[in-house]
Formats: sequence, C-alpha cells, structure tokens
Amino acid sequence: MNTYKKELIIHTKERIQFVNITERVKEIVKESGIQDGLVLINPMHITASVFINDNESGLLKDFKNWLEKLAPKNFDYNHHHTGEDNGFAHLWRTIMGREVVVSLTDFKLDFGTWEQIFYGEFDGQRDKRILIKVIGD
Amino acid sequence: MNTYKKELIIHTKERIQFVNITERVKEIVKESGIQDGLVLINPMHITASVFINDNESGLLKDFKNWLEKLAPKNFDYNHHHTGEDNGFAHLWRTIMGREVVVSLTDFKLDFGTWEQIFYGEFDGQRDKRILIKVIGD
Amino acid sequence: MNTYKKELIIHTKERIQFVNITERVKEIVKESGIQDGLVLINPMHITASVFINDNESGLLKDFKNWLEKLAPKNFDYNHHHTGEDNGFAHLWRTIMGREVVVSLTDFKLDFGTWEQIFYGEFDGQRDKRILIKVIGD
Repeated sequence: MNTYKKELIIHTKERIQFVNITERVKEIVKESGIQDGLVLINPMHITASVFINDNESGLLKDFKNWLEKLAPKNFDYNHHHTGEDNGFAHLWRTIMGREVVVSLTDFKLDFGTWEQIFYGEFDGQRDKRILIKVIGD
Repeated sequence: MNTYKKELIIHTKERIQFVNITERVKEIVKESGIQDGLVLINPMHITASVFINDNESGLLKDFKNWLEKLAPKNFDYNHHHTGEDNGFAHLWRTIMGREVVVSLTDFKLDFGTWEQIFYGEFDGQRDKRILIKVIGD
Repeated sequence: MNTYKKELIIHTKERIQFVNITERVKEIVKESGIQDGLVLINPMHITASVFINDNESGLLKDFKNWLEKLAPKNFDYNHHHTGEDNGFAHLWRTIMGREVVVSLTDFKLDFGTWEQIFYGEFDGQRDKRILIKVIGD
C-alpha cells in the first residue's frame, strides 16, 4: 500500500467564493503515482467546504443565496461574543460538507459526467489549506 | 491491498424517490472477496445522494416534505436560466450528502441495528449510476 | 496493509448534547500502531452525528438553535405515527453529517489548527456506539 499527501494553498479575493479545484486534484493524484484506491480531499479550516457538484455559474449563485436564507450573515450568533464575526461561515460549511472521498481506478478519478470538485470559501481573503490524501496501490 | 469497483444502475419510476440499496451493496461487498477495509458508495450524478438512515416509510416522507421546505421545487433558481428545471435537486443532494464510507470487518459492514443505505433520487426517471468501491485486504 | 477497529461507548446526560471526542480518537489511533492512512469515525446510530468544527461553546449553542429552526422538535412528523418522538433527530443528523474521514500521517491526524471532532447526540441518555476504523500501514 502507498500513500501520498499534499496541501493546496488557496487565497480567495472575495470573503465568500467557490473555486473549482478539479484539475489541481487530478494533477496531485497523477503526481502520487498511485493507480487504484481512494482520495480524500478536505479543507484544514472550519469555515470552508470541499464538495462535488455542477460547474454552472447560476447554480453557484443559487448556493450562495440559499445558504444566506438558511443561515444569514447578519445575525446575532453566540459565537460572535468571542469577537468573531463568522458564525454563518461555520453553519454554511456544515450544510455544504467538510470533505469528499473519491474512488481512483487506473490512475483516474471515477467521476460521472458532471462531477466537479469545489472548494467553498466562506471566510476568505487569507491563505487557506486544502489537504489531498491518496491511499492505494 | 485489494480493491474492487462496481456500478449499480438505478432507474426510478418517480422523479423523486428513495431506494434502499443495502442488500445490493452487501452482495457487491461479498463478490469483492475483501475481508477488511473501507467501502465507498456514491452516486455518479449531482442531483442524487447516497445516505444512511432508518428504513421507515414515514421518515422517508418527512425527508421529502422537509427538503421541499428548505429548497422548494418551484422557485426561480439562477440555474434554470440554462434551460434546466432541477435547481432544487442540486440543493437537496447537498443536504442529504453525496457519499457514505462504511467500515468492513470479517466480510461484513460494521453497521448498527438501524443503519440502512439509501439512494436518494431527486431528478430521476432515467438510468443513474451508483459507484461502489471496496478497498482492503 | 493493516486495519484497526474500535468502538467508543457514549452515554450523554442530556437528550441533545455535543461531546468533543478528539482526544479519545487520537488515543485509539495511537493504539492502532498504524502510521499512515485514513481514519473513519461514525456513530452506529441514525439520530447522531460525527462532525468536525470549532470547540467554542457559543458556536455549539448556535448549532442547537439553528437546527431547531431548520427542523423543530415539536412538529407532527410522519415518523411519529410509529410511536417514535425523535423525527427531528433524524433530520438534525442529516444536516450535521454521519461520518468524517481523516488523513493520518506519521502517526498523527492531519488537522488544521481549529479542527476538532465532535459527537452530536440528538436522542441520548442511553448508551450509544461510535465506530473508529483505521486503515493504512
């Protein structure tokens, strides 16, 4: 069994931003030399998500509007009593999910036609780390 | 280390439908001959979910009613400007989750009493693929 | 390849309670003797979650208030026609997620500064099991 670990650094321009990381994950999987196994991708931060969905700009807007309805930015969260102002970001990341696990076969991610990997940043404009771990043979 | 990959094809009668796939996953795990490791199960589509919950018909109705409240079908999603009409399905799949990872020991899934694996279809009535990947020894 | 499986038993005082299980998971990973691989952590119950977020008491209150808004405890769920009264708990667990998968390198969990593992109990006051499965070399 072999494993390979790498971190991606992402620094978004906007506080809230979706970044398609599919190609960067594929490159890292290629680098790993691992042919068959599983790939774990997760942010190392608790106000961000990694998720799989469609690369369609309208849908990405829908996600932002919908998250704002489910957990508004301007709300008196208990978390803000610590001086933080990102209560919503912890809730948004919970809805969108922390991590994805993807199957790897013959050096390729086993993806359907429309599956794309996104990093969801909900409290950005600073360096954030995404972990990619490949395990297999 | 060994791996085994198989795809299940599911074609639901209804656009929105939950299908209990526990027995089919168990058969595929048995076929794999792998004794100990991890099993990943995910749809290869972005308007569907694989999740673990209770096999109780009332609860499955509750899920549908609740998802409709959180993200109504009849809403002017930006995603619909592409000609699509399944904006809600992308959001429902986000709530229900994309994938599950299950522990495998002595040829058996390590499940509690009530854990059952469901496929959640939110834009069906056509062939959809579910990936099962077993990794272990 | 090696694997190691262990179950944690948790019995909360409150029906709804968050428990930080990070140190207990780390101990089990240490016990496993596995240096490099993946760790799966999930409850074996369908009214509970394992998730990763911030260990901040205000935020944990925010989670409870928010879940109550998204899926109120006092609601006539179809699931209650079976005699159960925990419909909300099945929905809360869906929002918070069933499981986490964590990367393991050099005998350590690959965590960012603030990542902590929580058990989310939504129908407690009785013994519940959490499964930890380590797979690697």
